[in-house]
Amino acid sequence: MDTIILSDWLAARLERSAAEPMYRQVLRLVQHAILTGQLAPGTKLPSSRTLADDLDVARNTVLRVYDQLTAEGYVLSTTGSGTYVADTRPDAATVRPRSAAPVSTPGAPGAPGTPSATRETLVRESLSTRGRRLIGRAGVAPKQWGAFMPGVPDVTEFPSRTWSRLQARLWKEANPELLTYAPGSGYRPLRRALSDYLRVARSVKCSPDQIILTTGIHQSMDLAVRLLTDVGDRAWVEEPCYWGARSVLQSAGLELEPIPVDGEGLNPRELALAAPPRLALVTPSHQYPLGMVMSLARRRTLLEYARQHGVWIVEDDYDSEFRYGSRPIASLQGLDDAGRVIYVGSLGKILFPGLRIGYMVAPEHLVETFRTGVAELYREGQLMHQAVLAEFILGGYLTSHVRRMRALYGERRQILIDAITSHFGDALPVMGDEAGLHFVLGLPDTVDDRAVTAAAFDAGVIVRPLAAYYSREEVARRGLLLGYACVPNDRIGPAFDTLARVIEQHMEAGAARAA
Amino acid sequence: MDTIILSDWLAARLERSAAEPMYRQVLRLVQHAILTGQLAPGTKLPSSRTLADDLDVARNTVLRVYDQLTAEGYVLSTTGSGTYVADTRPDAATVRPRSAAPVSTPGAPGAPGTPSATRETLVRESLSTRGRRLIGRAGVAPKQWGAFMPGVPDVTEFPSRTWSRLQARLWKEANPELLTYAPGSGYRPLRRALSDYLRVARSVKCSPDQIILTTGIHQSMDLAVRLLTDVGDRAWVEEPCYWGARSVLQSAGLELEPIPVDGEGLNPRELALAAPPRLALVTPSHQYPLGMVMSLARRRTLLEYARQHGVWIVEDDYDSEFRYGSRPIASLQGLDDAGRVIYVGSLGKILFPGLRIGYMVAPEHLVETFRTGVAELYREGQLMHQAVLAEFILGGYLTSHVRRMRALYGERRQILIDAITSHFGDALPVMGDEAGLHFVLGLPDTVDDRAVTAAAFDAGVIVRPLAAYYSREEVARRGLLLGYACVPNDRIGPAFDTLARVIEQHMEAGAARAA
Repeated sequence: MDTIILSDWLAARLERSAAEPMYRQVLRLVQHAILTGQLAPGTKLPSSRTLADDLDVARNTVLRVYDQLTAEGYVLSTTGSGTYVADTRPDAATVRPRSAAPVSTPGAPGAPGTPSATRETLVRESLSTRGRRLIGRAGVAPKQWGAFMPGVPDVTEFPSRTWSRLQARLWKEANPELLTYAPGSGYRPLRRALSDYLRVARSVKCSPDQIILTTGIHQSMDLAVRLLTDVGDRAWVEEPCYWGARSVLQSAGLELEPIPVDGEGLNPRELALAAPPRLALVTPSHQYPLGMVMSLARRRTLLEYARQHGVWIVEDDYDSEFRYGSRPIASLQGLDDAGRVIYVGSLGKILFPGLRIGYMVAPEHLVETFRTGVAELYREGQLMHQAVLAEFILGGYLTSHVRRMRALYGERRQILIDAITSHFGDALPVMGDEAGLHFVLGLPDTVDDRAVTAAAFDAGVIVRPLAAYYSREEVARRGLLLGYACVPNDRIGPAFDTLARVIEQHMEAGAARAA
Repeated sequence: MDTIILSDWLAARLERSAAEPMYRQVLRLVQHAILTGQLAPGTKLPSSRTLADDLDVARNTVLRVYDQLTAEGYVLSTTGSGTYVADTRPDAATVRPRSAAPVSTPGAPGAPGTPSATRETLVRESLSTRGRRLIGRAGVAPKQWGAFMPGVPDVTEFPSRTWSRLQARLWKEANPELLTYAPGSGYRPLRRALSDYLRVARSVKCSPDQIILTTGIHQSMDLAVRLLTDVGDRAWVEEPCYWGARSVLQSAGLELEPIPVDGEGLNPRELALAAPPRLALVTPSHQYPLGMVMSLARRRTLLEYARQHGVWIVEDDYDSEFRYGSRPIASLQGLDDAGRVIYVGSLGKILFPGLRIGYMVAPEHLVETFRTGVAELYREGQLMHQAVLAEFILGGYLTSHVRRMRALYGERRQILIDAITSHFGDALPVMGDEAGLHFVLGLPDTVDDRAVTAAAFDAGVIVRPLAAYYSREEVARRGLLLGYACVPNDRIGPAFDTLARVIEQHMEAGAARAA
């Protein structure tokens, strides 16, 4: 291809009525011609004046194109002697020439129109082993809002005007120090406010220095795991447990050992005890998702076992603010006198999930380490956001919101229980202490809770199958997680009517199969 | 200890003038007595009336204490027969009795007053191998603001009133869907705005669907690594490179192979080429920290090599908006026709670091997988924040801010170069293309850049030693990273005067040692 043909070739391809400016079109086309070899290395380009005339575009446009081609290395310009296509072909010593039969690489996308089965194979082959495991067992729900999505608070009740007012005031000052990276572990007044709150509300033993601000429970767990465990270490998780915890721990290289829970919480058998793990993740105040409280004897045993064997305990205290019968149960961390417990929590379930502010309480001797870890791994920031939250807590809005929501959610919980009783009597057990944002509705063994979940979703009701929370589904109890917090009082009955019909159908079908 | 003594024991310890309410004091003290065995299992507690009388507190206070003790499992109450201390001692079959000589566990904190050397040992022993490596090589600076902190934009120039106005408007509506968890990969209008922006400004080939919103480059890299690589896989990083990238990759279990860079960017030797890595992390538009642009020939070679060997390329495009001489260089991703490049970027350096919004462009066939990965690993949210940013971009404020900052930073860059020239002539080279928020000032081999950094810090000037960016310090060039973006024009000269004195002292001392 010589220079004369470049003008013709471009002229045939430029679209004068397109939205893309002439400059971009010419640049893109010449680059394409060079990359595909249609303009060979060494080819002399026409002078900018000639090309501008031939294409009937401003000379300045061509000059800009040539400048950019030069800056990006497509062409070489030498004053006086003109502009030549540079030799940018892949280094033959490094790669085989492209004309050779293309090697089938795992991640190369198929040709357009590849059938989706092939596409799935392709995706599977692209992922690593841990990636495949993560995606294959993904637990996140396709919808995050509506009856009976578990774990979601009623965000319509959030005092957003108050929040907005505090936020506007802080942005008015726009302190530059709050806009840049955060050295250390987050906004200090927030850490102070949280440590006061946790001491009183959760019997957590901590100073403001021990509070490390994170983006939530996932990040807190990730940090603890990366600093305190190595790839291949074993970790105890409760069976069943939160799917997100499993994902975070597994993708950090830990081998998970599911430990059964009973009415008193985590109940490791002799075999498990004989080989202490490096870390144990527990939800002592309100087992997730079943809802029991870990007994004091079990707590003391676990702490002593951890002390004797150097086990790290991560205490996930995700919704203890909402306890309807009695006062909140004290944290496990408050009983720990050996510095083995890392306490993690978040404000997402109290205020609104999109807040993405969580915290962890680090043992005193690890505070500096955890701070450095946050900065290294996540490059912390969000100080302005943290400052708004600090004002919110210091203004007393947090405690009054918790109080108000506790009354509201307690009411909704009762409405839902009444609806269950009026449909099923006591045929289906409600599991879970009088606490939290959800409970588990037990189903007969003959009913597949995943099938009920899918059918309910089609009928417009979101539930989560208990099976999804087990590491080993063969030991799973059948049941549904029902969240009541985000459902308006008058929607609970009608939504449960719909769900009840679905459950009944599956119970009848299950009974028929069993007969 | 019998019941009579409990009253006395409590009476001796209650502080009636303390801020802690009587209820909390009594509860805490009784719990302590039970946990330490001073109140043995089976001990009968005095009736609430008796204890209230003995302590001279309201009977209601004692009743609340007994209720909470019951709820938390410290005591057992049987109507009519009274309240007894429960047996909550750690299970003897599980743990050795506490009276046995305590086992020295790696993480147990030392006695109060442990000298700090011991404390350091203790911390080191608490951490895992990867945790120790992470903390031991931590690169984050102790201060994040001031002359000449690299990589930090001038946040005082951020149009915070505009931002605040857009934010207030969105919070006024407070759409509940923006307050809850985000299904998928983030706020769609923002993804659309970003894909338009990246197509035009960075020649990235992408649809809005391919944009995955994250909290920044760290999270984007982490996601790619966890989905596409396994523990023990090898990854190429540039030598030198960004410390944060090293931390993220290493703590995810990758083996890093530092690949030298020359004037044309990444330059793998034959030995490295012979064993293709699973992933390569590159900064082709503006090598970090040295500043060169990867040549077109190298880009084409790298892409072809990646295609042939199934290598994933993560393109970190962290500050290409700021290019002072010519127009921004096109992205590597735009040249990739094999779906091997994951493009990552962030808005922190353009707007303000505390924003914590980043994005990645996933190859089309991996979009669904990446979305699921974000939800599983990080439990995404921040939709309100993302909505404000979308409004900001759609209102044209992003491009006008970039334009304004480009002029300002270009000016500051020149002022700093002039200051260097007037002190050192051309004795010290300035490395880095005409782009970004920093450049590297080369130092003679006889000068220890870490020592200069420490001395400059004491003199009130922040710089970063080039050595810290190398994986193998023995091959490190000597130099200082100087950020000019966040320093007011009239502070640049005086701050450099201070720095120049420090450099001169170290050059003289270095020359004296060499002589």
